Amino acid sequence: MAYELYYWPTIQGRGEFVRLTLEETGADYVDVARKPGGMAAMMRLMEHAEHPPFAPPFLKDGETLIGQTAAILLYLGARHGLAPKDPAGGLWTHQIQLTISDFVAEAHDTHHPLSVNLYYEDQKPEALRRATDFREERIPKFLSWFERILSRNPGGDAHLVGRGLTYADLSLFQVVEGLTYAFPKAMRRVLEETPRVAALHHAVSLRARIEAYLKSPRRIPFNEEGIFRHYPELDG
Amino acid sequence: MAYELYYWPTIQGRGEFVRLTLEETGADYVDVARKPGGMAAMMRLMEHAEHPPFAPPFLKDGETLIGQTAAILLYLGARHGLAPKDPAGGLWTHQIQLTISDFVAEAHDTHHPLSVNLYYEDQKPEALRRATDFREERIPKFLSWFERILSRNPGGDAHLVGRGLTYADLSLFQVVEGLTYAFPKAMRRVLEETPRVAALHHAVSLRARIEAYLKSPRRIPFNEEGIFRHYPELDG
Repeated sequence: MAYELYYWPTIQGRGEFVRLTLEETGADYVDVARKPGGMAAMMRLMEHAEHPPFAPPFLKDGETLIGQTAAILLYLGARHGLAPKDPAGGLWTHQIQLTISDFVAEAHDTHHPLSVNLYYEDQKPEALRRATDFREERIPKFLSWFERILSRNPGGDAHLVGRGLTYADLSLFQVVEGLTYAFPKAMRRVLEETPRVAALHHAVSLRARIEAYLKSPRRIPFNEEGIFRHYPELDG
Repeated sequence: MAYELYYWPTIQGRGEFVRLTLEETGADYVDVARKPGGMAAMMRLMEHAEHPPFAPPFLKDGETLIGQTAAILLYLGARHGLAPKDPAGGLWTHQIQLTISDFVAEAHDTHHPLSVNLYYEDQKPEALRRATDFREERIPKFLSWFERILSRNPGGDAHLVGRGLTYADLSLFQVVEGLTYAFPKAMRRVLEETPRVAALHHAVSLRARIEAYLKSPRRIPFNEEGIFRHYPELDG
């Protein structure tokens, strides 16, 4: 039976981390909210499921319903060989993913530092201050951490964990992709200092299934409704 | 061998979720950074470990080093019977914990909406706006979600998952405890609407090991250096 992914239909957002992993596995999946009636189905599940997800994305696999991006990837990674089989390696991959989740939340808050219930235009001066801190302190801190992990991986610096691809690699690709869209000037500087991160991002983009996906209509273009938004005034 | 917990020695913070679980298990553990030389040991591990944690807390169990609060609890929960043994139940418990992590991050940002690198005093007008949104929109939304989960639990509404205590119950206790310290007026209102959450909080506080821990010097009092800070101007 095909996986059912539930996520907002017009943005990459957090759902994109799941989409990339599903695409790389080659598994059948339906991006439910992008189909007719799908949004209503998504809302029904959030309201009425015995295990209601707090927010999209969530994944339905038969009777199993899983929310929280990192939990979904933990589940998919184990089933499709996108994480080490040994418990310590699996937990380390998950720990990296959780740190990526923290990074993504901070990226989101650059344009919404005060409230998700206000428009960007209503919190623009605050966004300018938060984005400056994010660009100058947080992006370098996070990307240096990934660079260090790559450089210390006994399996080689082409992957975050072990010798093969994991969902954490796919997620790091997506973060670099999103941040490069949102903060092109800042990212050009930081990626020069983190060459292994830049190389991993490039290598993932050339994987056959990922390359095909990125060129397909299934890949929603970045836009100013999602997590990674290009507001030129926030870059620098 | 005793577990080694590494966390900032003067605050409850995210480390407290791990401390509560360790206390409930009755396992031997050392709160390393509160011992002489412990801070230096913590910094050394963050700098030099093959799997460097991005930030405290992290847990050392022999050769295994685990960062990220939710990943630590996933590990401890499985080893000490504080999560269901079946995979679906374990993942659901973890999903709840990840949502608690999101809630905690939002609680932190009420006093640091612009940057962790600035003092509260340097972002106070912004904190007032963010805290208002957090009190009026976010606290009710999160606590209603927990209330709904309790009410739908086939094992009964005394626990979030199944018939027995899980680490998610301990974490929900801690969030309610922290928010009640930080936002006593707002929490009084919301807890009246979420009686199952209030009852779970009370029941956890009366568990023998938790009650003994809360009265011990091992429990660091809340203060204005941690995640949950009582700034009366942010409550209402």
